[in-house]
Amino acid sequence: MSATSSAQPVLIYDTTLRDGSQGEGVSFSLQDKLNIAIRLAEIGVEFIEGGYPLSNEKDVAFFEQIRKHDLGETKVCAFGMTRRRSMKAEDDPGMKALVAAQTPCCTLVGKTWDFHVTEVLRATLDENLDMIGESAEFLAKHSEVIYDAEHFFDGYNANPEYALKTLKAAAEAGAKWLALCDTNGGTLPERIAEVTKIAKEAMASYDLQIGIHCHNDCELAVANSLAAVDVGATQVQGTINGIGERCGNVDLIAVIANLGLKKQGYSVLGGRSLQQLTELSRFVYETANLQWRNNQPFVGQSAFAHKGGMHVHAINKAASTYEHIDPAMVGNERRILVSELSGRSNIEAIAGKYDVGDDKELQNKILAEVVRLENRGYQFESATASFDLLIRRVSGKFRPHFETIKYRVVAGDRDVNNHVAFAEAIIKLQVGDTLWFDAAEGHGPVNALDAGLRKALSGAYPVLSEISLIDYKVRVVDSGSGTAASIRVNIESTDGKETWGTIGVSDNIIEASWQALVDSVEYKLHRSEA
Amino acid sequence: MSATSSAQPVLIYDTTLRDGSQGEGVSFSLQDKLNIAIRLAEIGVEFIEGGYPLSNEKDVAFFEQIRKHDLGETKVCAFGMTRRRSMKAEDDPGMKALVAAQTPCCTLVGKTWDFHVTEVLRATLDENLDMIGESAEFLAKHSEVIYDAEHFFDGYNANPEYALKTLKAAAEAGAKWLALCDTNGGTLPERIAEVTKIAKEAMASYDLQIGIHCHNDCELAVANSLAAVDVGATQVQGTINGIGERCGNVDLIAVIANLGLKKQGYSVLGGRSLQQLTELSRFVYETANLQWRNNQPFVGQSAFAHKGGMHVHAINKAASTYEHIDPAMVGNERRILVSELSGRSNIEAIAGKYDVGDDKELQNKILAEVVRLENRGYQFESATASFDLLIRRVSGKFRPHFETIKYRVVAGDRDVNNHVAFAEAIIKLQVGDTLWFDAAEGHGPVNALDAGLRKALSGAYPVLSEISLIDYKVRVVDSGSGTAASIRVNIESTDGKETWGTIGVSDNIIEASWQALVDSVEYKLHRSEA
Repeated sequence: MSATSSAQPVLIYDTTLRDGSQGEGVSFSLQDKLNIAIRLAEIGVEFIEGGYPLSNEKDVAFFEQIRKHDLGETKVCAFGMTRRRSMKAEDDPGMKALVAAQTPCCTLVGKTWDFHVTEVLRATLDENLDMIGESAEFLAKHSEVIYDAEHFFDGYNANPEYALKTLKAAAEAGAKWLALCDTNGGTLPERIAEVTKIAKEAMASYDLQIGIHCHNDCELAVANSLAAVDVGATQVQGTINGIGERCGNVDLIAVIANLGLKKQGYSVLGGRSLQQLTELSRFVYETANLQWRNNQPFVGQSAFAHKGGMHVHAINKAASTYEHIDPAMVGNERRILVSELSGRSNIEAIAGKYDVGDDKELQNKILAEVVRLENRGYQFESATASFDLLIRRVSGKFRPHFETIKYRVVAGDRDVNNHVAFAEAIIKLQVGDTLWFDAAEGHGPVNALDAGLRKALSGAYPVLSEISLIDYKVRVVDSGSGTAASIRVNIESTDGKETWGTIGVSDNIIEASWQALVDSVEYKLHRSEA
Repeated sequence: MSATSSAQPVLIYDTTLRDGSQGEGVSFSLQDKLNIAIRLAEIGVEFIEGGYPLSNEKDVAFFEQIRKHDLGETKVCAFGMTRRRSMKAEDDPGMKALVAAQTPCCTLVGKTWDFHVTEVLRATLDENLDMIGESAEFLAKHSEVIYDAEHFFDGYNANPEYALKTLKAAAEAGAKWLALCDTNGGTLPERIAEVTKIAKEAMASYDLQIGIHCHNDCELAVANSLAAVDVGATQVQGTINGIGERCGNVDLIAVIANLGLKKQGYSVLGGRSLQQLTELSRFVYETANLQWRNNQPFVGQSAFAHKGGMHVHAINKAASTYEHIDPAMVGNERRILVSELSGRSNIEAIAGKYDVGDDKELQNKILAEVVRLENRGYQFESATASFDLLIRRVSGKFRPHFETIKYRVVAGDRDVNNHVAFAEAIIKLQVGDTLWFDAAEGHGPVNALDAGLRKALSGAYPVLSEISLIDYKVRVVDSGSGTAASIRVNIESTDGKETWGTIGVSDNIIEASWQALVDSVEYKLHRSEA
């Protein structure tokens, strides 16, 4: 895993903030962009493409702000297109925006494919070569230049001689990197290797290196990137989690893990540990407000999850029997799933963690209860706190801290005195011999219930003031009958130190939410006594 | 795309119903399994692994039921392990279960890796060879035998001589297929090719063919499967959408599309059209109750979606500039996304569809309204009916069919007379000069609102009796503050002929749901007049 003296370094070029932001549903705030850039620098990513300053004021602000941060050896890159057709480079607004970004590195994209030059740019082939050369030359006076050859592989297929001429134009002008882009993502690995090798050999007389930029339209972006590395590319461009337009850019997480842990002869991220990869992946998903891809290689929640009884049986004997790497190497962890397919092996595997010991009868009871609840739509895979309570209940260790006498919520489209939607909850609870009755307002009925529940309990259990909800998700379990279907609510809570997930299922979203809220509070109260 | 006389056929072996069902959150009913099998046969999949009859009564029932269906040339396979260590094949319960399944084909899995034989099976290496050979020989009397060599690549790395002996044991016993399994998904494409080639050559004297079975733990399953095909494998095992344990099996959708449309020299699905692939992918997601992977290659909703203004500009000139294949070849379609990054090109591209024509001022107004709403958390990408209404509103063509005077919902944990959670809604509307006041009960407040809204409008608009909700989704847009965060509600409605999506955003889930319900009804009423 660590770099050896003979290992070939492969530099990582992240474009999550630029190409990634083209992905459907992706939108970063300025602060989001700064946070991601800082994280990328921390793990040792060599290049961070921050944005396209000509087209976007947010990106201009990003380059201004990021200069105030010490990113170590990581270079921030501003991205732009070659100068316009009938304009000097120094007069071109795009070139000016790149220089104004004051980044140590500029990434210049230009056309390779003759068809694009004549039909999209409406320029002659020679004009395009001038645009590439003069733009690169101008930028090279101010910063390191990376030339991104758009549609390189499609362009090479259409007109190989011209495609190589465009590279040469950038090389002669002083570009330090030529990144070959499979912009449409349609090229297969064997062709990526073949054409990358030709390009590298054709540029051998220049003092520059080759990069690769792949998209995942054939589900081959990782294989394509590795194929290019195998014939001498020393920079891989991509995005964290593969976010990006259409099917996404190549997922740098998988590229880094494969180069660092699986392939022989390469070093990545300067030989640093890759134990931050899982956290980085999840941080980017959360920041982009995207759902995690649970089955994502290396870092997904399910990447080292074992469900079938036979596999779990073997895993207990030796982890390598069903795991290609130790999950800790990428900061991930093994999970033994509780599910319909659970055999005794699964229950045994979790027994230690939950102090169930060797009590076979108890293990059977737990399994039966899990199966019963799963048939009603529960899933304990992320609701670990509810699962903890289930084990306490089945094993007789659960002591309820309160009894719900009743709750009720009212919500409507306007209050008496103003014209905003309102929601309020009333709650009656019993703790020991004392009745507590309270009410709370909220942004919606669940928020009101949450506030009311903790308000009603605050007298008896002041410790509850520490907890707050950090996520709330609703899923229709059987979507066949619309809003009348079964509703699964997942809630994530935190006390600032620990976070825990709880679940509720009902055909009524309020009731499902209430179950999850009650579990969250009960879990906290049980933990506080431990 | 169509098979030529010289093209090498590659047969598709689907294990969605067996290995796919090991995926986290995946659970098929008997009817689900039958429905999927029938669809797979329709598109021409050659082998369908239906289940593991020894371990699962649902699978036993599946094999009984599927026999009643005519699946054409598609062969159903029953899956099982080699016989137990100290038992004759004919006495082994697993062998008996396979025979009892009465399938034209049985898939027998056996151990390749010496470590697994001695440490997991607790058998000697020779005992394992006998178990493979005798099991295959027994099954070959009843059906075609496919031998799945578990952990073939890891086993070959550990002990190449023994790994090939296990294949030979199956081959000598009459197996017609030897499927090489990268069970842990940790092998890289170059090694898959190298070892598959060795295995194929070692088995050249037998009358059999080689298959490949990959998992996606390195994000390389598609590349690995194609690499094996390139050295002579003629069967690819995988699952639809790549569902399966951990990071999943190889996605057969991408395998089929790459072999059928991208790679030269192969034919797949007997040369049939691949235009059913997108529908098949979505059908399996829906049946498994999994969320679609929007960026899935070839068949994802975003696979041919264009967001950046520059790309859309070029797409309008020639689709091939940013599309590696025609989306219609796999039954998918191009989408022009409405988003923050929308330039004029995007709005122009949708203008034709929505009859906005050449009115630049109107296009600018639409764009401004989209940006304003997106900043508040709206996303029109799947809420096409709400987007349609937005255009009608901005262009002055929207005529409200009713005015909401007020709505209110009450929900609680028990009714006066029984002990189930309840919800009721009261609604007051104005249509023309008439006030309508009505109330409805429901499974939760949104269901009650939906019922109440359509009940209150039924007098004025009987056409609304045709519509029903088919899906309801809730997403916290900013998850930073739990239940007080902004809530995005997506509703999908149908009238039996068309389905349409609407959206609502608010910090109150009830208000967000109400907006989406109102849009759904308004869309239907506007369409009914068209």
